[in-house]
Amino acid sequence: MKIAIKNANIITMDKNMTQIENGYIIIENDKIAKIGDMQDYQEEVVEEEIDANGDILMPGMVNTHTHISMIPFRSLGDDCKDRLRRFLFPLEMECMTEELVYKSAKYAICELLLSGVTTIVDMYYFESEVARAVDELGIRAVLGETVIDFATCDSDKAYGGLEYGEKFIKRWIDNERITPFIAPHAPNTNNTEALIKSNEISKKYNVPISMHISEMDYELKHFREKYDKTPIEYLESIGVLSERLIAAHTIFLTDNDIELIKKYNVKIAHCIGANTKSAKGICPVSKLVEKDIIVGLGTDGPSSGNTLDLITQFKLFANFHKYINKDRSVFPASSILRLGTIEGAKVINKEKEIGSIEVGKKADLVIVDTKSVNMFPMFDVYSVLVYSANASNIKTVFVDGKCLVKDRKFTNIDFDKIREDLIDEMREFKIKAKDKEKEILE
Amino acid sequence: MKIAIKNANIITMDKNMTQIENGYIIIENDKIAKIGDMQDYQEEVVEEEIDANGDILMPGMVNTHTHISMIPFRSLGDDCKDRLRRFLFPLEMECMTEELVYKSAKYAICELLLSGVTTIVDMYYFESEVARAVDELGIRAVLGETVIDFATCDSDKAYGGLEYGEKFIKRWIDNERITPFIAPHAPNTNNTEALIKSNEISKKYNVPISMHISEMDYELKHFREKYDKTPIEYLESIGVLSERLIAAHTIFLTDNDIELIKKYNVKIAHCIGANTKSAKGICPVSKLVEKDIIVGLGTDGPSSGNTLDLITQFKLFANFHKYINKDRSVFPASSILRLGTIEGAKVINKEKEIGSIEVGKKADLVIVDTKSVNMFPMFDVYSVLVYSANASNIKTVFVDGKCLVKDRKFTNIDFDKIREDLIDEMREFKIKAKDKEKEILE
Repeated sequence: MKIAIKNANIITMDKNMTQIENGYIIIENDKIAKIGDMQDYQEEVVEEEIDANGDILMPGMVNTHTHISMIPFRSLGDDCKDRLRRFLFPLEMECMTEELVYKSAKYAICELLLSGVTTIVDMYYFESEVARAVDELGIRAVLGETVIDFATCDSDKAYGGLEYGEKFIKRWIDNERITPFIAPHAPNTNNTEALIKSNEISKKYNVPISMHISEMDYELKHFREKYDKTPIEYLESIGVLSERLIAAHTIFLTDNDIELIKKYNVKIAHCIGANTKSAKGICPVSKLVEKDIIVGLGTDGPSSGNTLDLITQFKLFANFHKYINKDRSVFPASSILRLGTIEGAKVINKEKEIGSIEVGKKADLVIVDTKSVNMFPMFDVYSVLVYSANASNIKTVFVDGKCLVKDRKFTNIDFDKIREDLIDEMREFKIKAKDKEKEILE
Repeated sequence: MKIAIKNANIITMDKNMTQIENGYIIIENDKIAKIGDMQDYQEEVVEEEIDANGDILMPGMVNTHTHISMIPFRSLGDDCKDRLRRFLFPLEMECMTEELVYKSAKYAICELLLSGVTTIVDMYYFESEVARAVDELGIRAVLGETVIDFATCDSDKAYGGLEYGEKFIKRWIDNERITPFIAPHAPNTNNTEALIKSNEISKKYNVPISMHISEMDYELKHFREKYDKTPIEYLESIGVLSERLIAAHTIFLTDNDIELIKKYNVKIAHCIGANTKSAKGICPVSKLVEKDIIVGLGTDGPSSGNTLDLITQFKLFANFHKYINKDRSVFPASSILRLGTIEGAKVINKEKEIGSIEVGKKADLVIVDTKSVNMFPMFDVYSVLVYSANASNIKTVFVDGKCLVKDRKFTNIDFDKIREDLIDEMREFKIKAKDKEKEILE
């Protein structure tokens, strides 16, 4: 199977940030086979030819931290204090079922694909159901089962995720598009034993381990009082820091934490939108990248970040990090686009496969509509993508060489049915959610 | 002329924040004639019937500060320090012509309408050309000619805007859709005499006066050194504070400044996106609204804020003000939507005409697509609009009773031609802009 994309403004996001203003690429099966200038294009026999007509061709984006099956929670209690423990935990326990996780995941994958996200790092409950949805719909994913110190919707005892998680890893470890991992929820919602066990599983199967770290003020207080350590220092003391660890959020970091993150080559999933909307704080990304620590961007779940696209995060990232650094020139637009593509690929140790447009890499590709009213003029293509674009400007999306979205429509996915199925499945959830809202807001 | 909109989820933004989940409205000529629940709907003879099919019907949004004709500058030198004086001022002087202002304004008005903005407050040069574009395309506008202490593209001497501005006011003062005003650029780019003269013109014709105030660190330094005052204190001392004044930006405010703003009933146009992208700072809006000072939202020019829609500003507003107040519950979504509608109307003293859906008010209305993937589920309609929506979710737009956008397409405007005309007109600008970029970046 061969596909040609012609007349594209290609931003490769390779090491040299090569841009080909009027270029072409040839996709062969799941990979990028050729890249070049249209001047040098030689007619090829291909199954399909796409004329990008000057639109931007860029690598698919990598969302390094989310919980996609939390779609049912979106817009519920957004402005409530302590929402996690008052809304989310109890409703998850009461209402999340296998079917709801599966159908929500399918819905969310549609949203991700339409917005140009081609790879996600997801952690939740019933993660096998997320894998089933990913497997069916064709996105690339790194998926982890949550381990936590209480009974959950998918386990009648605490830490049920350890057993579920190991089984899940075995099931998916050889899959091409799905990489399984283990996901202890947070240092303060797991005991030491569970954290060590999770890390052993990660080591045994050589898969990532990811958790929320240094996100909550009460988390910091807990470790300060109990061990006189930061969460990062505590994790080091029990041997859990490693190059396999993807630390999400990391809002509150000391200089020593940053040293430890660097020393162990821990990867960071930065969720600027969710962290600021919840008024928690801002991860000191400029200090991290100064030390060449690898940072990617995440939306967090749709309950927290509301949208799953990375373009929204680009704008928020730019404005927040320029503001806190008091310098409009820090993090120029091109560097922010790197965080959403090639740096995201590094977070999941897949920078040899995805994250940039290079010959031999997977054909995870996005065409962005430059005819949309907000995308003109284009003195700087990165500026336009970071400061002007929105998720609806994404036009065409390839994952693994397959065109899943073409001209804003799915090629093979019945989105209307997925939406209807989710609405049906959510009936009980909706009633309970409204009751909970009433109870809390009164 | 009568139009019915049926089956709409109406958020009126009236005093009681009345919401009609399945409602209708009747438009008669330029006004809203009836509002009600579908249960009570009685068939009427109408020229047109629109089935909103459950979509959101809300008031048109009010962008209280922009410079729409700066479209040609978008994405040029975004991440450069001191961009205003290095890029914008010299290129404006050299390249902005009547035709370029006119054609850029037309382009920008298309972008505004497609995003659901139905009223703008604009200040620039050749403002008559902006008025011409507004008059032709049908948006509502409050337009002011800039007064500044140097020769400009539309005046070969300093302060040419005073004469141009007064003439401009006389020309448009009786227009239904256009309200003219006078726009001294900033306190530090005008001498005392010009500021007083501008204020006299505003008083004489009873039109607004608007300027950038307390936006620049060097502006504050200037007034501290010269008068030992803040810019606001200085303006009070020369008699320029009044209920007619729309102060844009007001990033740096002392408690005394806030007292003065309250005392004189000065209105605020808050540009969160532009102010943070440029790393300048954040206007203390929570302190202002605590004192019932009227605050609206502005995008600033497309050179600074990049997009002209208010939905982008809603999200930025939410995240920034929750973050700086360290409280996720401040500025709940509904209050942010008020800033973009009814409070914006108050900024321009038009709250009796626009800003909410009420019988007798102008039919400036927007239908938002709730079938878009990012708009589901909808536990809270305001949450969805503030945290999930983007400009491309706007479906249908009425200004002054006329349907200008229907199902994301213009009813009467030839956008392709407007775009082509602007591209043609920009040829010389583009060359000079690229030269300037080269000169500065080298």
